[in-house]
Amino acid sequence: VTARAKPARSGRRSGDSGTSEAILEAARTRFASHGYQGATIRAIAAQAGVDPALVHHFYGTKEALFAAAMRLPVIPSEALTAALTPLPAVGLGEHLVRSALTLWESNELKETFLGLFRSAVTSDQAAVMLREFIAESILGTIALVAGLRDRGSAAETDYRISLVASQMLGLALTRLVLGLPAIAGASIEELATSVGPTVERYLTGDIALPERFD
Amino acid sequence: VTARAKPARSGRRSGDSGTSEAILEAARTRFASHGYQGATIRAIAAQAGVDPALVHHFYGTKEALFAAAMRLPVIPSEALTAALTPLPAVGLGEHLVRSALTLWESNELKETFLGLFRSAVTSDQAAVMLREFIAESILGTIALVAGLRDRGSAAETDYRISLVASQMLGLALTRLVLGLPAIAGASIEELATSVGPTVERYLTGDIALPERFD
Repeated sequence: VTARAKPARSGRRSGDSGTSEAILEAARTRFASHGYQGATIRAIAAQAGVDPALVHHFYGTKEALFAAAMRLPVIPSEALTAALTPLPAVGLGEHLVRSALTLWESNELKETFLGLFRSAVTSDQAAVMLREFIAESILGTIALVAGLRDRGSAAETDYRISLVASQMLGLALTRLVLGLPAIAGASIEELATSVGPTVERYLTGDIALPERFD
Repeated sequence: VTARAKPARSGRRSGDSGTSEAILEAARTRFASHGYQGATIRAIAAQAGVDPALVHHFYGTKEALFAAAMRLPVIPSEALTAALTPLPAVGLGEHLVRSALTLWESNELKETFLGLFRSAVTSDQAAVMLREFIAESILGTIALVAGLRDRGSAAETDYRISLVASQMLGLALTRLVLGLPAIAGASIEELATSVGPTVERYLTGDIALPERFD
């Protein structure tokens, strides 16, 4: 499923592309000003001067609209779910590192990923938007696929999955952005083996949780 | 020791500040164009039209010149060594996480750190310069203080310390730049307890090293 997908139905009138572009423009403005969580389909539709049903018709879910507005070549939660499944019986951490690095380094996604990274680091507004998107779409998908929500409280799951994010985004930063030689020069398989146990411990291991989670 | 230190000797003539500014300007240009490793005091002096001895007189080491040119409020290896020593007998990983977060979040350094982070992520030239500086000055200092060089080959030490960097910079990214709630909302002590064992394992634990290190 690609985020650039045009409406599935055929027989569009020539006015459709103007409408869909107006929706994307309104979405970009609204996501930037209100964050990913705060921007609603209803408000985006109002800003574009169309009915909310038309936004759903053109783009489907809020995530798919976000992906289209940000010109992502895939819908992140779908690409991530596809990369992560089937889950292995053992070695969840290694699997996650391997899948994420493979996804990030695919030709289709590499530039997009770097672009999002750059905007998050340089613009406070983009940081808020991407933080909310990462928390809801990316980390939520990992928690769901890995079955974390069944194991601990919501606060514990958020803490665990955010620790995973700290390691995975740091790996992306040192490998793809900074290019630290020892990390950039290692193979995906080597990094999966070295870093996998860290991710596994954060996901399901015996880590010291903040006392306020009790 | 501050990187902004003026020459220690008194009785400077009024022409000195023009000379020191010309040296800093030459240093900025040269570090950007040749990277941290490739820029030499000799070449910087030539570009500023002064004798290399004068550069040493004004700024001391290459690292101190870099710190002054980048307007860092401290000399990184010195601040880091001060933060890390004395090393504890146990809990090296926790100690490193605690020290690094405390240093990054000090009023003196927070904005500087974020500024360097932003430039590394947005400019390829800055990324090369900062990668080399991080590898030589920051990671080299950690390896030295932690006594890593005595324990394994240079390749192994570089790999271990770069894994530490991937976790620590990812922690900085998610806490200080993105502000992921579960990481930004945790105390330094909580993060030291949760992330410390990761850093400890990377530094001295039984990790799977790439086969080419054998």
